[in-house]
Amino acid sequence: MDQYRALLALCGALVQGGVQDVVISPGSRSAPLAISVAAFPAIRRHVLLDERSAAFFALGLAKESGRPVALICTSGTAAANFHPAVVEARAGYVPLVVLTADRPRELRDIGAAQTIDQVSLYGSSVKWFSDLPVGDSAAEETYARAAGMRACSIALAAPAGPVHINVPLREPLLPAEPLAPPADAPYIRPASPERRPSPEQLDEAAALLAQGRAVIVAGPMPAHRPVPDLAALAARTGLPLLADPLSGLRYRGDGALDAYDLYLRDPELRRELQPEVVLRIGALPTSKSLGTLLSGALQQVLLSGEEPWRDPLLAPGIELPGDAHLVIEGLIARMPAMPESAFSARWRAADRAARAAAETWLAGLRELFDGAAIRDLCGLVSPRDLLFVGSSMPVRDLDAFTPGGAGPRVLSNRGANGIDGVVSSALGAAMAHPLGRAALAIGDISFYHDLNGLLAAKRFSLNLAVLLLHNDGGGIFSYLPQAGRDDFEEFFGTPHGLEFCHVVQMYGGSHVRPKDPAEVRSALQDALSAPGLHVVEVRTARPRSVALHEEAFAAAQRAARAALSGQRDA
Amino acid sequence: MDQYRALLALCGALVQGGVQDVVISPGSRSAPLAISVAAFPAIRRHVLLDERSAAFFALGLAKESGRPVALICTSGTAAANFHPAVVEARAGYVPLVVLTADRPRELRDIGAAQTIDQVSLYGSSVKWFSDLPVGDSAAEETYARAAGMRACSIALAAPAGPVHINVPLREPLLPAEPLAPPADAPYIRPASPERRPSPEQLDEAAALLAQGRAVIVAGPMPAHRPVPDLAALAARTGLPLLADPLSGLRYRGDGALDAYDLYLRDPELRRELQPEVVLRIGALPTSKSLGTLLSGALQQVLLSGEEPWRDPLLAPGIELPGDAHLVIEGLIARMPAMPESAFSARWRAADRAARAAAETWLAGLRELFDGAAIRDLCGLVSPRDLLFVGSSMPVRDLDAFTPGGAGPRVLSNRGANGIDGVVSSALGAAMAHPLGRAALAIGDISFYHDLNGLLAAKRFSLNLAVLLLHNDGGGIFSYLPQAGRDDFEEFFGTPHGLEFCHVVQMYGGSHVRPKDPAEVRSALQDALSAPGLHVVEVRTARPRSVALHEEAFAAAQRAARAALSGQRDA
Repeated sequence: MDQYRALLALCGALVQGGVQDVVISPGSRSAPLAISVAAFPAIRRHVLLDERSAAFFALGLAKESGRPVALICTSGTAAANFHPAVVEARAGYVPLVVLTADRPRELRDIGAAQTIDQVSLYGSSVKWFSDLPVGDSAAEETYARAAGMRACSIALAAPAGPVHINVPLREPLLPAEPLAPPADAPYIRPASPERRPSPEQLDEAAALLAQGRAVIVAGPMPAHRPVPDLAALAARTGLPLLADPLSGLRYRGDGALDAYDLYLRDPELRRELQPEVVLRIGALPTSKSLGTLLSGALQQVLLSGEEPWRDPLLAPGIELPGDAHLVIEGLIARMPAMPESAFSARWRAADRAARAAAETWLAGLRELFDGAAIRDLCGLVSPRDLLFVGSSMPVRDLDAFTPGGAGPRVLSNRGANGIDGVVSSALGAAMAHPLGRAALAIGDISFYHDLNGLLAAKRFSLNLAVLLLHNDGGGIFSYLPQAGRDDFEEFFGTPHGLEFCHVVQMYGGSHVRPKDPAEVRSALQDALSAPGLHVVEVRTARPRSVALHEEAFAAAQRAARAALSGQRDA
Repeated sequence: MDQYRALLALCGALVQGGVQDVVISPGSRSAPLAISVAAFPAIRRHVLLDERSAAFFALGLAKESGRPVALICTSGTAAANFHPAVVEARAGYVPLVVLTADRPRELRDIGAAQTIDQVSLYGSSVKWFSDLPVGDSAAEETYARAAGMRACSIALAAPAGPVHINVPLREPLLPAEPLAPPADAPYIRPASPERRPSPEQLDEAAALLAQGRAVIVAGPMPAHRPVPDLAALAARTGLPLLADPLSGLRYRGDGALDAYDLYLRDPELRRELQPEVVLRIGALPTSKSLGTLLSGALQQVLLSGEEPWRDPLLAPGIELPGDAHLVIEGLIARMPAMPESAFSARWRAADRAARAAAETWLAGLRELFDGAAIRDLCGLVSPRDLLFVGSSMPVRDLDAFTPGGAGPRVLSNRGANGIDGVVSSALGAAMAHPLGRAALAIGDISFYHDLNGLLAAKRFSLNLAVLLLHNDGGGIFSYLPQAGRDDFEEFFGTPHGLEFCHVVQMYGGSHVRPKDPAEVRSALQDALSAPGLHVVEVRTARPRSVALHEEAFAAAQRAARAALSGQRDA
């Protein structure tokens, strides 16, 4: 029997399972997969040449669309190039269906060309693996269909993540005749259970929250989930809501605190604001100073949601598992409307004062500064649009320097915090974004790492405004203890001296290098309003950037301390 | 106890195990590894920013030096970026010692930043894996030392390949005081057994070879092994020696046949030259037409050497395991000096005629042609220098169009035949090459795939002459059955329209695009004689290139047929 019947069954099942986008890297062994996918008009095909970038493009597409995205590559090292994005998809809960072409069983492990051991190639980095049979019987066709549906179902089931199907393909690799998609065949319809905590668990948590000095901390959350309404809980209870830029709650304009990263660097302020109880959702926040605060002795109420419980704090408390919306509803119903406590008022006063001081300090700045550039970008991106941020300094500067209030949807590869694949992920997200417009804030090492990703901008005419924060090396290391060492530049600073204007030109983009803050703002505005790829490069010196960060933090901390002492006096 | 004692023991063991080069990608968690390595003056450090390119650079360095090369990266997706090169190292028998930094056990799987499951990350792609203890006791220090020595020993033991040590590191990550390398501590000295076939096995093989129409086929062999003297066996027995360009036997000027790929494309010639017995060494040859010949019914004598037996032919025969030099000595001692048989003479006549015809055809060519450019490059590279060739069309064109005789040492990533990491591998090999000069023949998709690899040329001031065969897409697919399909350009041709002069300029290289064959030759000569990175881009059109290949093959086949009919008449 023709292997194409099984392949069409597989691809049809992917469509039934929700796949609308397939990212394909060219190859000969994988030709039957590409050709089968093309028989389905419901599938959009995106062909990219570097498998590493292709996989991150698929990751961005899946993050923004919330749908599983399929990936196709040929046999051999091509498949290993998918691994970094597969790791990020696992850690960041992104549904990817990876299809790798392979030799059939009888051609493996005998020295045939371009043949490696692809069985369980991604190990524990995927949720599920299947080595398909070769598809030459009706039973195997049925199996292939079921595997396609299970792949999508498992990829989407909470916590979402990547799955891998290895597809053995025999010569002749081309179909004997034109392909037509088969009729949909029914299979088990996947269902998710409704998970919620018991009334007793909710009672206990509500009592704990009402009892002492409590805060709500919203950490980074998977991009494809609806944002749980913690603002309503905060309004009801008067508790301060600290919203990470990747929580989905920072840029909604409903009163979340946003300046804590600035003033919690001060040990004295941490002591004054130390909570006894924290309600946490999502991953640990981006802010290291908030992490330090939370590692102080406290009790946790952990809204673990649909993802596994992430708790580097290892602190005692209560888990509230299941659908976060139901959990929050249950808590609101149990908690009396409370006036703002003195503790909450102190938090709010410190936050407001610190943010105002930081804004004043930024407004007075006459030189280029990463934090200012990111703040400007975040303010200029329309709330309907998308902002992707690099995993190292950009997300931290976004956290420190951008006020809350109405702002864009923010994405980042903070599952495993890699600096790889960021350009591709941003472009994949741009392709999936309803308005097709996106901005990216990224450092020079991360930009270099995925220059190949820019090919997607050229091939698919995508719109991306890039704020390139270029300090010729690894900026974040200057904030770590190694900053003063003799070997700093060799191992950590790693200056490369690359002038990216050349490569941006190769990919058909524009490149400007503004000289002062006003030029940065107008360049970003231009980049955001024109179609295509535009790179605004902000050049800074690493030691000067450290000094400016410290100045800004000091100004914010002074203001927060003053606000608190005002509160005490009142 | 200070974890640095265990790290210094580990690094000292690597030095004792033969490591002289370490390729480091920057990171914070991996800082203790980088700093420990730096305590050893015997280790050269190469810092590269993209882990994928860094790993292929290490692969090229290990291939050319024959020594194990260590790789260091930080935790998370960084480690997954090593995977493609690890796969190639496994398939190509290259000793790599991969050291990945990780969180200590108590910080894994709890949602700590940049922490993924790195245990057995490369699965079956490595020969050996160890998750080190954290190194805070004397027993753990001893274990770390033993692990370092075992890593080198296992990486080098035949068949050579990659090993992986996952290194948990605790904060504080920086040493309290300057490090000094510890005194060498003894451990078991590894030894390789002397493996050789029994006299009876040799007798049987010698009888089989003497009995019928036999040929010797030298396929691709691991670059770091001494080349077995098959030419002496061929001279003694009069048997034709067909030498793959990656066998180490093609460019030695001792009479190996080199034109078989051209004329064995003709089924009639294959029938006339069909052997009954083949003595094989190494992997299956690059030439598909030779592969077709060998898949005809025949008996094999398989010199499996130190690598596992690779036999996609699945044909009957005899294995002669063990040291190839001893095997060949044994065969020579057992085989009478034989005059050239009529069968051998026919092979030699066909080969000589086909090569001469191809050379004449090339000399008459007035337009740009990939085969001619590779032939010129191979002729211009000094026999003391190094030629690295891409895995797709370049190695095939080298096979078809370069005459044997004195020529350069040739390397290629033909373990898994990937087109990824080729630029980095060539630069790593250039760094390890005694004269530090190398040439690279590469297609445009493969060049694009590893543009990041060019950073090594800039950072380390390496000398590399690149022949870039640019046909704006995947050239090899035009030779496969899909060439006529409607979806050909979308899935296989995949034109990208990239002008690489920009990016070459970014990395400080020169770029020229000659217009005719004479200009190609002089540009290659210039590129080979000047220090630094030089790219000679030969632009061709894919369909025209197919037509020219066919013309060349036809001319060679006509000449071979004429030579054979001349032989029959004589």
